[in-house]
Amino acid sequence: MHINEMLADAEKTGQPSFSFEYFPPKTTQGVHNLYDRMERMYNFGPKFIDITWGAGGTIAELTCEMVVQAQTYFGLETCMHLTCTDMGEGKVNDALQKAYKAGCTNILALRGDPPREKEKWTATEGGFQYARDLVQHIRKKYGNHFDIGVAGYPEGCDDNRDEDQLLDHLKEKVDMGATFIVTQMFYDADNFVRWVGKVRDRGITIPIVPGIMPIATYASFLRRAKHMNCKIPEHFMAALEPVKNDDHAVRELGKTLVADMCRKILAAGIVHLHFYTMNLAQATRMVLEELDWMPTDNRPRKQALPWKQSLGLGRREEDVRPAFWRNRGKSYVTRTQEWDEFPNGRWGDSRSPAFGELDAYGIGLTGTNESNRKKWGEPKSIQDIASLFVRYVEQDLDSLPWSEAPLTSEADSIKQDLIDLNKRGLLTINSQPAVNGVKSNHPVHGWGPPNGYVYQKAYLELLVSPEVLQQILPRIHDHPDLSYYAVTKTGSLKTNAPSEGPNAVTWGVFPGKEIVQPTIVESISFLAWKDEAFRLGVDWAHCHESGTPSRALIDEIMNDWYLINIVNNDFHQPRTIFELFQGLTVKGLNEEVIVPPTETNGVQAEALD
Amino acid sequence: MHINEMLADAEKTGQPSFSFEYFPPKTTQGVHNLYDRMERMYNFGPKFIDITWGAGGTIAELTCEMVVQAQTYFGLETCMHLTCTDMGEGKVNDALQKAYKAGCTNILALRGDPPREKEKWTATEGGFQYARDLVQHIRKKYGNHFDIGVAGYPEGCDDNRDEDQLLDHLKEKVDMGATFIVTQMFYDADNFVRWVGKVRDRGITIPIVPGIMPIATYASFLRRAKHMNCKIPEHFMAALEPVKNDDHAVRELGKTLVADMCRKILAAGIVHLHFYTMNLAQATRMVLEELDWMPTDNRPRKQALPWKQSLGLGRREEDVRPAFWRNRGKSYVTRTQEWDEFPNGRWGDSRSPAFGELDAYGIGLTGTNESNRKKWGEPKSIQDIASLFVRYVEQDLDSLPWSEAPLTSEADSIKQDLIDLNKRGLLTINSQPAVNGVKSNHPVHGWGPPNGYVYQKAYLELLVSPEVLQQILPRIHDHPDLSYYAVTKTGSLKTNAPSEGPNAVTWGVFPGKEIVQPTIVESISFLAWKDEAFRLGVDWAHCHESGTPSRALIDEIMNDWYLINIVNNDFHQPRTIFELFQGLTVKGLNEEVIVPPTETNGVQAEALD
Repeated sequence: MHINEMLADAEKTGQPSFSFEYFPPKTTQGVHNLYDRMERMYNFGPKFIDITWGAGGTIAELTCEMVVQAQTYFGLETCMHLTCTDMGEGKVNDALQKAYKAGCTNILALRGDPPREKEKWTATEGGFQYARDLVQHIRKKYGNHFDIGVAGYPEGCDDNRDEDQLLDHLKEKVDMGATFIVTQMFYDADNFVRWVGKVRDRGITIPIVPGIMPIATYASFLRRAKHMNCKIPEHFMAALEPVKNDDHAVRELGKTLVADMCRKILAAGIVHLHFYTMNLAQATRMVLEELDWMPTDNRPRKQALPWKQSLGLGRREEDVRPAFWRNRGKSYVTRTQEWDEFPNGRWGDSRSPAFGELDAYGIGLTGTNESNRKKWGEPKSIQDIASLFVRYVEQDLDSLPWSEAPLTSEADSIKQDLIDLNKRGLLTINSQPAVNGVKSNHPVHGWGPPNGYVYQKAYLELLVSPEVLQQILPRIHDHPDLSYYAVTKTGSLKTNAPSEGPNAVTWGVFPGKEIVQPTIVESISFLAWKDEAFRLGVDWAHCHESGTPSRALIDEIMNDWYLINIVNNDFHQPRTIFELFQGLTVKGLNEEVIVPPTETNGVQAEALD
Repeated sequence: MHINEMLADAEKTGQPSFSFEYFPPKTTQGVHNLYDRMERMYNFGPKFIDITWGAGGTIAELTCEMVVQAQTYFGLETCMHLTCTDMGEGKVNDALQKAYKAGCTNILALRGDPPREKEKWTATEGGFQYARDLVQHIRKKYGNHFDIGVAGYPEGCDDNRDEDQLLDHLKEKVDMGATFIVTQMFYDADNFVRWVGKVRDRGITIPIVPGIMPIATYASFLRRAKHMNCKIPEHFMAALEPVKNDDHAVRELGKTLVADMCRKILAAGIVHLHFYTMNLAQATRMVLEELDWMPTDNRPRKQALPWKQSLGLGRREEDVRPAFWRNRGKSYVTRTQEWDEFPNGRWGDSRSPAFGELDAYGIGLTGTNESNRKKWGEPKSIQDIASLFVRYVEQDLDSLPWSEAPLTSEADSIKQDLIDLNKRGLLTINSQPAVNGVKSNHPVHGWGPPNGYVYQKAYLELLVSPEVLQQILPRIHDHPDLSYYAVTKTGSLKTNAPSEGPNAVTWGVFPGKEIVQPTIVESISFLAWKDEAFRLGVDWAHCHESGTPSRALIDEIMNDWYLINIVNNDFHQPRTIFELFQGLTVKGLNEEVIVPPTETNGVQAEALD
């Protein structure tokens, strides 16, 4: 989506919006941490994010990678920065093509700082001299595919303090095809408002987005202001100087000062603020809280669908996914990245095209063997493994081989049931409670446009021993509302599904629309997921040395047990899917054996005298 | 669907089934009456029907027309008879092609009786000598497209009483590709069972369908038995002869005799009975009741979708239709008969392809001007017209220009509201009540497979005066759950629909399936319906002489009023759509004027002193 469309939206609805800027970190661990933070900050609700250009080699590659990550996996609209520094036309084209392929539709075209070793900026041989040349090149090569932003300097730029000359340059960039302006950081709101007037006087009508730098510490505040030649208003200094050694006080005062500045800017008719986060969450969050713009609870950001949409190229229309990858969204996007179209036909490419091979995309357990052993210990019995699963459901453990993130609040209503199953060695790796038509703005289960109703069929996916499977299948077959798919690592599929077609397990009814059916259960994708699920288990086994009891135990489970998913098609009945397992416990657990179910739906019969 | 598949189904489920045979009537009125009867008898639940071949000219054409009618409009699987009598290869091919195009997949291949003027059967020049030649020809020309039935003679045939020779002929027909056998009428069950044994001894394994002739009157019973050389068992004569002059007693005894015979046949392993109805309903219905095979109530036959599916060529997969033609199914099928595919894309051809022009297909008001004036009188005021609509809703009138059939029990829950609207000159021409998830076997609203839940959004379509429209639109715009389309005869479309896409107004959730969404509301088809709706009104006006008050009145309504449809997207609220009209009455009705609504949802405010 073009940034201009988002700004027009904010203008139309009168609902101010904001965006975040991140830069490529220098270390792998830094990148990892930043991805975590970006994902958390997604829930603050930015309209888009910027990734700055890491001029030169690996760090430029990283910018492109971060754009892919944000667009494709986090579903965040992204604006990629691009500079002329050290960039020949070939490198520029390469970066643009990568942005295009990632589904990115916004570029901020900059001249850039001089390379570190040089004092003064000079153009690269065969490269671009000015940002306006870069704008012109992008416009020529990609037509209107990209919205193109350019920098604005309300307080002059590094090597030029002449406001009129800078406004001439700005006009040239706009004439070459720029469609929005992002300013350098500033703290002087009055000067900014004055400068906007001058920009408009030049006949420049494209949107202006002010760049806001929240205050984290006194030292960094001064350093950055100095680096950017940014004027610090007296009342900022007067407030902050006295508490400069108290980081907490600086942040508290800083958020008020910056929020006040933001209010002044908004009062002047600006509808969108761009935050220079410096890759940190706290200072920005505090300003948003002060402006009362933060979501009022810790719930995930309200989404159009019950899963996070990818904004990768061609994926914006994707509206259906199998339920199986709920806790491994990135893997799903990766394994389907070669698909031509979303959706393709009624259920789209969730079925017809092949899923990417595990090895081709490096799908498997992440983390080192050592760190995984640290996380999940060295289980020596099914009891140990069951305990791990129980701890995950109790939110005492942040991940399992099959779940990258902690259990969400969606599971609250079935948490006790899940604990109960896992305690008995019935290892749940995915689930959703039944939802019989709650409003689409429901705090936990809601998704999609307002004034709708959303529904879910109860869903349960487990690893079960062959003995348990043998007990479970007749019970499922006896029940008109239950359908299942079960399979071993190498075995063939068992199912009672009435047709080849998909079973919609999540759907929503909205005003003036067809029924939206974003989550399905069906065979082809389940078989693709099966390979992944068992692979994750085998990878876990291989975190342990050959010959160790843990290795043998997990390997045995992967070789012998079944992966089964069960849907209760009667979404009015939230309990049935759990009652199904009544009286069952895995052999070897607490020395107990499987208790055969009685006739009365598994409830143990009283002994008869 | 092939008859063999239906028989295999009956075999598998152990649920005996039956079929009806009709012949082409001699007069237009006779055809009209038979169509009515066929549609009523559809609700008895026959698996298929046979249409006999009307040898020669117009009557042969009529057979083909009846096949089209049954397949395409009634959604009845049909078996078309075809005889060698008077038929050259060209005529046979022509008939086969018509059957093919009608979506018919079953042919009963017969030699046929000699033409009336001849005593003995002779082949037509360039035609076929024996039924076996006809079987061979169909098989050669159409491969396995048609299931091909042939006649079996448990009591010998007209010009051949030699059982062994007839069995030789039967074997020849089977060897040429026949796939099922329908027997001539008989009353001797024991002989039939014996004969089946002989057929099986010949190595003939294809299904045998016994032809059953219910007893209507004593005279016709004797005449037909004699005509077919059919042996009448002694106990039939002993029972019927004494009461031969009492038609009622004959039918009562006859149904018991025939039902007993049917039970004997079923006990011998036969799963399907074919009834020679002689184009009459009563005698057949009585036998079905005696066998306890009749649906236990007067409700329409349980259907896979909320509307009657067409079995026309390429239409079997059709699963979505606009709501507008609910009371004019035949017109919808006619206007979409040139479409290539059902469905085509998500909502299928209900949107993309053009709808057939009214004139090209003779869409308009049926009945003569005189008969229509008799039905609907000569209205001289809006009051008169409102009264007609009220009588229709009160089921005191069987049809209106916009509704071919009486109001169904589906409207029971909103009947009083509809009467109330029409009394105030708000002329309702289509409606459905809100349904918030009742079981799919619900006696009134249910459809589709068992163990599902079905839903409906409240829907109302009316003719309203411009003044009423003016009052209504602001109320709709103020309501977040209501969407509408409104248009005059020649005007442009007004709507508040949030998107171009269709609004699903009926849907069902079934085990292991995607959500089925068979009824929609959207703009393109509404505009096609609009032409038809106003055309029906203009046709009605033209039932009255030019210059008469009725002509002027109806013409005026057609020229000035709006056709509006309204959907309440909140299907939890059954009342809102009616509350919308509170306080509104059409000008000129009872000399009342429109009472402007108060702020409190249209309820009249108390007068203030």
